[in-house]
Amino acid sequence: MKKISDSTISRLSTYYRTLSRLIEQNVETVSSDEIAEINNITSAQVRKDLSFFGSFGKRGLGYNTKDLREEIAKILGLKKQWNVALVGVGNIGRALIDYAEFKKQGFIIKALFDNDPKKVNTEVGGLKIHDIENACNIVKKEKIEIAIIAVPAKHAQAVVDTLVQCGVKAFLNFAPVTIKVPSDVIVKNENMSIELEALSYFLTQNKKGD
Amino acid sequence: MKKISDSTISRLSTYYRTLSRLIEQNVETVSSDEIAEINNITSAQVRKDLSFFGSFGKRGLGYNTKDLREEIAKILGLKKQWNVALVGVGNIGRALIDYAEFKKQGFIIKALFDNDPKKVNTEVGGLKIHDIENACNIVKKEKIEIAIIAVPAKHAQAVVDTLVQCGVKAFLNFAPVTIKVPSDVIVKNENMSIELEALSYFLTQNKKGD
Repeated sequence: MKKISDSTISRLSTYYRTLSRLIEQNVETVSSDEIAEINNITSAQVRKDLSFFGSFGKRGLGYNTKDLREEIAKILGLKKQWNVALVGVGNIGRALIDYAEFKKQGFIIKALFDNDPKKVNTEVGGLKIHDIENACNIVKKEKIEIAIIAVPAKHAQAVVDTLVQCGVKAFLNFAPVTIKVPSDVIVKNENMSIELEALSYFLTQNKKGD
Repeated sequence: MKKISDSTISRLSTYYRTLSRLIEQNVETVSSDEIAEINNITSAQVRKDLSFFGSFGKRGLGYNTKDLREEIAKILGLKKQWNVALVGVGNIGRALIDYAEFKKQGFIIKALFDNDPKKVNTEVGGLKIHDIENACNIVKKEKIEIAIIAVPAKHAQAVVDTLVQCGVKAFLNFAPVTIKVPSDVIVKNENMSIELEALSYFLTQNKKGD
């Protein structure tokens, strides 16, 4: 398997969404030019991203929207349900429990964890909050494969260490801290202020150019 | 000004955080090797990212942590306060109002908008919710430069169009839809399920390799 860049994978997710919308509109075929235009990138980039995974579509005829979406779903692992644990039931955690996009893509939050005795054993969104101390039992019972970390920065590493010991191999981290994990484990960081800094960079450079 | 890639800008944000933590620990100098190791990347990448913006640090002596953080803050536009509007006071919106990282980096939410008559004129986090119909008045009064879009997908384009007309040039979009804007306006998308798909891709490929 070739090493595929993170940005290629992220664009595949974008193409998947584009195709879903086209299928909703009963569009049967689409060209790389059209996919590119919808997403403000070059058609060469679209073709290159897809070429890593095989040869889809026919020259001059474009791609069949349903077939291509199916292929991308297979590549991204979206043909199955993923059982997800959420750790940290604060503001961000609560917003994520209700985030419809997760469920739509097959990511089902099956377990909630917190370390606050006032929260443990209460329910949010129909799910009971468990003490993080009991993580391994619940991870096993609910067949958890992915964990979302929405705890304060100072607790994030310890929480991940605990869940790695329970066998969890993939983490989406909302805590503003870099997490260390063994080489067979993956962490993706979701730091919402980093995206804002890309905006302030853009605005600052543009002012310089005025 | 050279065209700098989005991933370089995103890594500068990461280095900024690394330097902040080192300064808190009273560390005065740091090498590119050390910055690289903390962030699981190569030291060549660190040096290349910084080289776009000038020559910092001294060969063999590394970087002065405070000086380098100051330089990165200037590049990213973090030396000033940015006035931010939040549109859509649902679950995600409410989580963002309380998201401490924004304020810490100088992004201050100064105005809230919604189109729900039940929410308009109520307060959240000490801020009054305004009708999006009155956007331009508030944008002008509060000197809004950046808007966070946390409305349902079907309303996102119309909200952005309205705010572009009010002069807003930078958007952080949480709605799962691609937004079209004029070429002097920037949109960064924050789609949290895209990061989860990078995890399912990783888990799927690893299973194939078993």
